[in-house]
Amino acid sequence: MLVKVFVSPRKGILDPQGRAVAQSLKSLGFDGVGQVNIGRYIVLELDISDAEQARATVRRMCDQLLTNPNIEDYTFEIAAARDESPENQSR
Amino acid sequence: MLVKVFVSPRKGILDPQGRAVAQSLKSLGFDGVGQVNIGRYIVLELDISDAEQARATVRRMCDQLLTNPNIEDYTFEIAAARDESPENQSR
Repeated sequence: MLVKVFVSPRKGILDPQGRAVAQSLKSLGFDGVGQVNIGRYIVLELDISDAEQARATVRRMCDQLLTNPNIEDYTFEIAAARDESPENQSR
Repeated sequence: MLVKVFVSPRKGILDPQGRAVAQSLKSLGFDGVGQVNIGRYIVLELDISDAEQARATVRRMCDQLLTNPNIEDYTFEIAAARDESPENQSR
């Protein structure tokens, strides 16, 4: 399985990196830029054939290591192989 | 428009953070973990109504500031509003 995890700063949590990027984009002349949030995009290979078991495993990985549950939210997708028919899965 | 940018270390480029996370997952007892890559997940609000113009603008943002074109690849999606009908767009 190929797992893609999307980690974002939780709403209401300060995201100084996002604010800095928003300011830099404006300085570069990009108009119309609103809020910017910078999170992490994690792609991992996981050798588990059962989809439900894979989803449960990814949730545990996110809670234990990949994300900080106090200040971050995440969603993930699991695909059977690289770049094929992703299966959407929200937390 | 809501823009989601997915930035990954280019294939063949060393990703020490990804290797560290892979090792940590194994140490925590997660079996079957293969390669792990850590990139950035950037979400930004962009006040441009024309989709084609928005795509061109996002490409320029990625090339100028959001990514390092020497060592990173990116894809992005543009949605008309938060979490509605994303329009896939690869570089």
